Amino acid sequence: MLRLSPPGHERLETANEFEVRAAGSESNVAVAAERLGVSSVWMSKLPDSPLGRRVVGELSRYGIDTEIVWSREGRQGAYYIEHAGKPRGSNVVYDRADAAVTTAEATEFDINILRDAQVFFTSGITPALSSTLRETTKTMLKAAKQNDTTTAFDFNYRKKLWSPEEARETLTSLFPGIDILVIAARDARTVLGYEGDQRQLAHKLGSQFDFTTVVITRGEQGALAWHDNVLHDQDAYETETTDPIGTGDAFTGAFIARRLARDDIGTALEYAAATAALKRTIPGDVALVTKEEVERVVSDQSETISR
Amino acid sequence: MLRLSPPGHERLETANEFEVRAAGSESNVAVAAERLGVSSVWMSKLPDSPLGRRVVGELSRYGIDTEIVWSREGRQGAYYIEHAGKPRGSNVVYDRADAAVTTAEATEFDINILRDAQVFFTSGITPALSSTLRETTKTMLKAAKQNDTTTAFDFNYRKKLWSPEEARETLTSLFPGIDILVIAARDARTVLGYEGDQRQLAHKLGSQFDFTTVVITRGEQGALAWHDNVLHDQDAYETETTDPIGTGDAFTGAFIARRLARDDIGTALEYAAATAALKRTIPGDVALVTKEEVERVVSDQSETISR
Amino acid sequence: MLRLSPPGHERLETANEFEVRAAGSESNVAVAAERLGVSSVWMSKLPDSPLGRRVVGELSRYGIDTEIVWSREGRQGAYYIEHAGKPRGSNVVYDRADAAVTTAEATEFDINILRDAQVFFTSGITPALSSTLRETTKTMLKAAKQNDTTTAFDFNYRKKLWSPEEARETLTSLFPGIDILVIAARDARTVLGYEGDQRQLAHKLGSQFDFTTVVITRGEQGALAWHDNVLHDQDAYETETTDPIGTGDAFTGAFIARRLARDDIGTALEYAAATAALKRTIPGDVALVTKEEVERVVSDQSETISR
Amino acid sequence: MLRLSPPGHERLETANEFEVRAAGSESNVAVAAERLGVSSVWMSKLPDSPLGRRVVGELSRYGIDTEIVWSREGRQGAYYIEHAGKPRGSNVVYDRADAAVTTAEATEFDINILRDAQVFFTSGITPALSSTLRETTKTMLKAAKQNDTTTAFDFNYRKKLWSPEEARETLTSLFPGIDILVIAARDARTVLGYEGDQRQLAHKLGSQFDFTTVVITRGEQGALAWHDNVLHDQDAYETETTDPIGTGDAFTGAFIARRLARDDIGTALEYAAATAALKRTIPGDVALVTKEEVERVVSDQSETISR
Amino acid sequence: MLRLSPPGHERLETANEFEVRAAGSESNVAVAAERLGVSSVWMSKLPDSPLGRRVVGELSRYGIDTEIVWSREGRQGAYYIEHAGKPRGSNVVYDRADAAVTTAEATEFDINILRDAQVFFTSGITPALSSTLRETTKTMLKAAKQNDTTTAFDFNYRKKLWSPEEARETLTSLFPGIDILVIAARDARTVLGYEGDQRQLAHKLGSQFDFTTVVITRGEQGALAWHDNVLHDQDAYETETTDPIGTGDAFTGAFIARRLARDDIGTALEYAAATAALKRTIPGDVALVTKEEVERVVSDQSETISR
Amino acid sequence: MLRLSPPGHERLETANEFEVRAAGSESNVAVAAERLGVSSVWMSKLPDSPLGRRVVGELSRYGIDTEIVWSREGRQGAYYIEHAGKPRGSNVVYDRADAAVTTAEATEFDINILRDAQVFFTSGITPALSSTLRETTKTMLKAAKQNDTTTAFDFNYRKKLWSPEEARETLTSLFPGIDILVIAARDARTVLGYEGDQRQLAHKLGSQFDFTTVVITRGEQGALAWHDNVLHDQDAYETETTDPIGTGDAFTGAFIARRLARDDIGTALEYAAATAALKRTIPGDVALVTKEEVERVVSDQSETISR
Repeated sequence: MLRLSPPGHERLETANEFEVRAAGSESNVAVAAERLGVSSVWMSKLPDSPLGRRVVGELSRYGIDTEIVWSREGRQGAYYIEHAGKPRGSNVVYDRADAAVTTAEATEFDINILRDAQVFFTSGITPALSSTLRETTKTMLKAAKQNDTTTAFDFNYRKKLWSPEEARETLTSLFPGIDILVIAARDARTVLGYEGDQRQLAHKLGSQFDFTTVVITRGEQGALAWHDNVLHDQDAYETETTDPIGTGDAFTGAFIARRLARDDIGTALEYAAATAALKRTIPGDVALVTKEEVERVVSDQSETISR
Repeated sequence: MLRLSPPGHERLETANEFEVRAAGSESNVAVAAERLGVSSVWMSKLPDSPLGRRVVGELSRYGIDTEIVWSREGRQGAYYIEHAGKPRGSNVVYDRADAAVTTAEATEFDINILRDAQVFFTSGITPALSSTLRETTKTMLKAAKQNDTTTAFDFNYRKKLWSPEEARETLTSLFPGIDILVIAARDARTVLGYEGDQRQLAHKLGSQFDFTTVVITRGEQGALAWHDNVLHDQDAYETETTDPIGTGDAFTGAFIARRLARDDIGTALEYAAATAALKRTIPGDVALVTKEEVERVVSDQSETISR
Repeated sequence: MLRLSPPGHERLETANEFEVRAAGSESNVAVAAERLGVSSVWMSKLPDSPLGRRVVGELSRYGIDTEIVWSREGRQGAYYIEHAGKPRGSNVVYDRADAAVTTAEATEFDINILRDAQVFFTSGITPALSSTLRETTKTMLKAAKQNDTTTAFDFNYRKKLWSPEEARETLTSLFPGIDILVIAARDARTVLGYEGDQRQLAHKLGSQFDFTTVVITRGEQGALAWHDNVLHDQDAYETETTDPIGTGDAFTGAFIARRLARDDIGTALEYAAATAALKRTIPGDVALVTKEEVERVVSDQSETISR
Repeated sequence: MLRLSPPGHERLETANEFEVRAAGSESNVAVAAERLGVSSVWMSKLPDSPLGRRVVGELSRYGIDTEIVWSREGRQGAYYIEHAGKPRGSNVVYDRADAAVTTAEATEFDINILRDAQVFFTSGITPALSSTLRETTKTMLKAAKQNDTTTAFDFNYRKKLWSPEEARETLTSLFPGIDILVIAARDARTVLGYEGDQRQLAHKLGSQFDFTTVVITRGEQGALAWHDNVLHDQDAYETETTDPIGTGDAFTGAFIARRLARDDIGTALEYAAATAALKRTIPGDVALVTKEEVERVVSDQSETISR
Repeated sequence: MLRLSPPGHERLETANEFEVRAAGSESNVAVAAERLGVSSVWMSKLPDSPLGRRVVGELSRYGIDTEIVWSREGRQGAYYIEHAGKPRGSNVVYDRADAAVTTAEATEFDINILRDAQVFFTSGITPALSSTLRETTKTMLKAAKQNDTTTAFDFNYRKKLWSPEEARETLTSLFPGIDILVIAARDARTVLGYEGDQRQLAHKLGSQFDFTTVVITRGEQGALAWHDNVLHDQDAYETETTDPIGTGDAFTGAFIARRLARDDIGTALEYAAATAALKRTIPGDVALVTKEEVERVVSDQSETISR
Repeated sequence: MLRLSPPGHERLETANEFEVRAAGSESNVAVAAERLGVSSVWMSKLPDSPLGRRVVGELSRYGIDTEIVWSREGRQGAYYIEHAGKPRGSNVVYDRADAAVTTAEATEFDINILRDAQVFFTSGITPALSSTLRETTKTMLKAAKQNDTTTAFDFNYRKKLWSPEEARETLTSLFPGIDILVIAARDARTVLGYEGDQRQLAHKLGSQFDFTTVVITRGEQGALAWHDNVLHDQDAYETETTDPIGTGDAFTGAFIARRLARDDIGTALEYAAATAALKRTIPGDVALVTKEEVERVVSDQSETISR
């Protein structure tokens, strides 16, 4: 979708210009994976308009392929973000009502793409947008499974899109079709009502459902992965934040990319955390990193000035 | 509503920033009238969000008052405009689906404002947005009439919002409640199917319906007003165009303002044409003129550099 | 007045563009109070020029009313500010000589506005600008008192406008007309020569003069209020500073607004400190906050990203 | 390559910022062809650096594919352009010395791309950059011919890169391998020494060498094509110029695209001229048009404002 | 002085940023002369502040030397300009009250600079700023004369600074000390009350006073020089105007420079007109040309794109 | 040379505009020295182009003189810098191949400038650019020595320009001609292979070669100077970094300036450290400070806001 943001820390209420960027959890994940070497395709439904083409053009710039259902109906979805430090905090205003994508049905997409892919990723934001998309998400996850494509899912609860109750009902119904679950510790508590520490939480999720891997993200506390009944801890790398949006997506995209490259869970977590740390230094939603940069962070060879 | 436009002549498809301004036919008319000395109130329904407040804030900056129904539901309506010279031409992309204003009902507004006003103005864009707004427009025009408030209406046909047939049916049904009609010669032809030259067109409209005044706008050919069965001709003033959007609204706002100040039709047309010419030199939708500037144009005392 | 500032941390000496904003202690206080729900009017004298109208237009955008004496003589006052971190520090260059406001006499304003107001606020910057304004300030404070309008005053010593001695003589002569005094601890020391800790300072000021309330502001150490012979302590809220200018004005505006809303001193101080903390995250002089944001800070419910 | 240009009409000598865009005759032609529906690949050699990746990223945004030899040696070629009206005129400063592409040899590229393509296009700028590129151009044209790929060539003489004599010797030696030649009337005179009117010029070129098609471009006078011994005339469409750079490339790309779509020469010229006219309204080197826009120009249905 | 202008054609009343440049008739003339090869010194009095240093820094960038009296008192003079096409026209707001320069006395400057110079230039704007400057102008002109330094003077009447009557009295009193007078035909009429055509006007001025040379500038009609009782006509060169301010100063600076280089009057006029035409294509007050560019215009070798 | 950098923390790979500034170790040192009161001349060889003139113009703005060999051949050297926080870090891309300066020979410069100067400064970056410049550096240092001009040299190792081995061989061969050596502790280790703590390092360098003064810079740990066999320690001043580039050059320029003003080593180090701290608050390469600001830092009188 489009992301519109006032420059610097200006307010939406008085801004006289907006920076425009392509954004969105699924495409963010695709870009992060692509930058770490995995060929990625983003599937969506967009209005056949300059705005729809703008989104696709920018994503092409980042190297991913796109598979778009072009629609005569529906808007280009967008979100507005006002960046701010504490105690104001960054504020998101969603503008996704009536977006073309809210009418996307599974039958509109080329099923071969799913079949040929090694991983199919989607997130909990998509089913929050419309009942049609709830169906579509379910169908796509099922189709992926049937084709032995690994399914990965970021829980991504957004309180401005639906209530915890709605989210819980819908998202847990998708769990049986998911191999790799990524979920913020905060969402596990708020939406799923899980209590206890994060290690317990990971074990509970891993054992209660049929996930292959569960990753719990914990912001500045790093991440935790449950896999084969073993827990793996990963600290967050130190980072100077320019733009925090998309940190989780960078993490997830890198994690998937490294797992596809047959890294073990621990190594994949390192790359994921490094990509997430780099993302926070980059304006915009997407983790426009290079693999070399990620490796420098993992191997602790970053410099203040490289010259 | 919001107006989002790439800087200069950049394309929507590749723009990396948008200029943001408040815009819209009705508020444009209100600002033009205010700048010529008429106290104006803009009535609308907006989302209770930073974006809704942004629109109101900017209009307050131009000196008009606002009477807003703040809504928890619905989007902030917007339009995107890409400016370009010939043969590309400027291109508007409407983004008004699901806007809060599309649900505005007459009962939500304070009827006293209508009652106390000397003129109530609305345009043919509003009823194009939703069936609710069609009803609301009809009711408001009727309420104004019942309170002896003069009603003014700009036909403003927009082909990207509805078909000529839909527009004709809806808008002609509003004609009986309208005192002052402003209509572009092109719309009279495309939508109403009127033929013949513009003078015939003005006479036909004036005599067929019960308007007090009919103003035909003709772009670079100026304007024509029918009043008391007499036709008044007005040439367009020479102008160097920076932004053509809002020219008609500037014309209408100034015409109404001068009629309220008891100018005769000919003088009102002069001020209207001068305000329209000045508008075209000003970036954005609104005619941010001063009365002195308009008078300098009318009296032909403009300078290339005033110092 | 106008505030002109190079973008980012660029230097005045080499800047090629200036950001332009309306600014000034009194209007900053008015905006902060308005944003917290108090209807505010800013009174001033401005040149009848695009620059004077610019100031009024921007303040209207923030929702306050203005009562302006438009003058054919005199400049638009301005200040230049270059933002910088330590050890350079932000640098203000005043450009207020010959400003229209320096000639403003009390008789030029509508005394009814004072009479109808609950609070009249002015600051120690105004009498620093001209001997005429010294007289005017005195007269206005007296007029307010006579009409049972509460008078509030921010001491606001500016060493680039006058010496400590001049300031002391003028400002202490105004004290008898003031109900609520706001003063920085640093100014109390530098100008008034008070020694001892801040609690002693507050007590001394409160008992020596006839103030109802004395508020001592202490930057990152928060504030202290003396009222009814009782001292109230308020910590500063943690904040990430984007623009420190106007912090004190935000504090004062919010404090007055909450006192008018009949909050007790302690609660008013909380709102004041929260508004001040939010202000520092906002570019420009004015505290463009919402009441909801202030309440979130007071109740400790801010988020890093709200979505 | 990179194009760096001061904003507006600022001078290179004093500019404080440069707009950055991807540019270059061959990629411009590829984009124009792609936008008219022809799948295009741009082949080049670039430094393996953020600057090289920047060029590729922007071209991907416009939809074309790229086949890049990434080099550890050599710079990213660039040109600086200062835009200006008469009599200053726009001024180009080339900065292509030591660019990675100057070392590109034919053997570094995948010959299959040439073999599979319907048309291979290059221009007279490439062989002007280095003796290596002179060889490479010759080899690539020969390889294309051997694989029955049509060869198209824009003469594109640049006096800041080489003398008329050098250009003549090199470029005429390439003529035997070229099917479609595009050449500005001015270059035919300055470099080839051809005299007489443009019709004679076209006939001479067509008969003297073995071209299938010769297109003479004549700026505001339109173009002329010689094909099968017949001359076809095409007027230029009226246009308001925002950026004249790339007009010829837009023309050539569209002409090739339409010929590939089996349009006759006359129709292809119309599309070419329309694309060229649209290009001049668009900032930057590339003709970021849509096919619909081109068709609207050809069928004379452009509007000043489309809404 | 400083020049502050909204970007593009934005209005002062709503602008959110100003472009900042050094400006002023005398320094404009100095830069134009310097660019044509004459070593120039600009003498002024400025506040010892970042703003004063900014003016000097920018002028140094253009290559001229400066001889500044640094003052602790007084403001940095400025002017605001809003650019606009017809019929709005560009609008200048002077902000020069209390500027440091208004207190400059002849004794503050190093008289040796005058003595060593071949030409001393000043303009009718300086004596308009204060009575002190009227004296200073008179004294400096006299000192120049006494040292056999040629004196040149641009009449430059500004109606926003003084009335025609004041200007006439002051400026004609300076005429006896002036060798080369430059005056706009319009000013000769408005201020001096001269009637008749421009040739008569030139003759009248030349014969009535003791000028060596009188140049009448006529905007788009070019210029006219009276010298040795002979009239020389010069057409204006065709130009596409980006910024008209400083056209006359460019003309004058180039004229003086070429006269110093011993060009005859006719040739000097050609260079002057060419420099003036180039100036209009350049944003800002100063004629940032090269001698080569001027010569290309004079010899009619300009190109639309030089590459 | 030119410095091109994306705004804020944008990436080179996606930036759409670059800020342009003059930069380079030697000119940075010259500006810092000039700002502290030492008249400075920068000698270089530049292309006779708008880009070469741009560099000189900007340096003139900062007050230094320039002695330029204007060349018809060769490029304008440049570097690209992408600013970023940890762990990304700022990244420099050099673009100096084929720069005009790489061909500069000692005989091209006016030897009198060296002779008349009190100090000749150059850095280890210059000989890294070409073998010609290696010779030139050697010759210039020798010429300075012969004329009793003090020679100062910043080691400035840049790993992107040459290997430690190449740097060691070349730079140590220059040591006999150097009076004042400035070297980063990191470079002493990486290139010279020195071990032990920084005090040992300083002693070793001081005793092994024939330097008068050796300054070891240690980033946030401050600096260390060896002189007359005595070590002087200097802490770094606390600073909020806006742009770290040029910190060392600011240090060196100020150190030289204060030594020329006959400060003792300890005082010179204080000024150097204060200038370096101020530099980090200023965007761009150069230390655009005033002497008063430096003195305020040295005497610990900086303020957060000066007003």
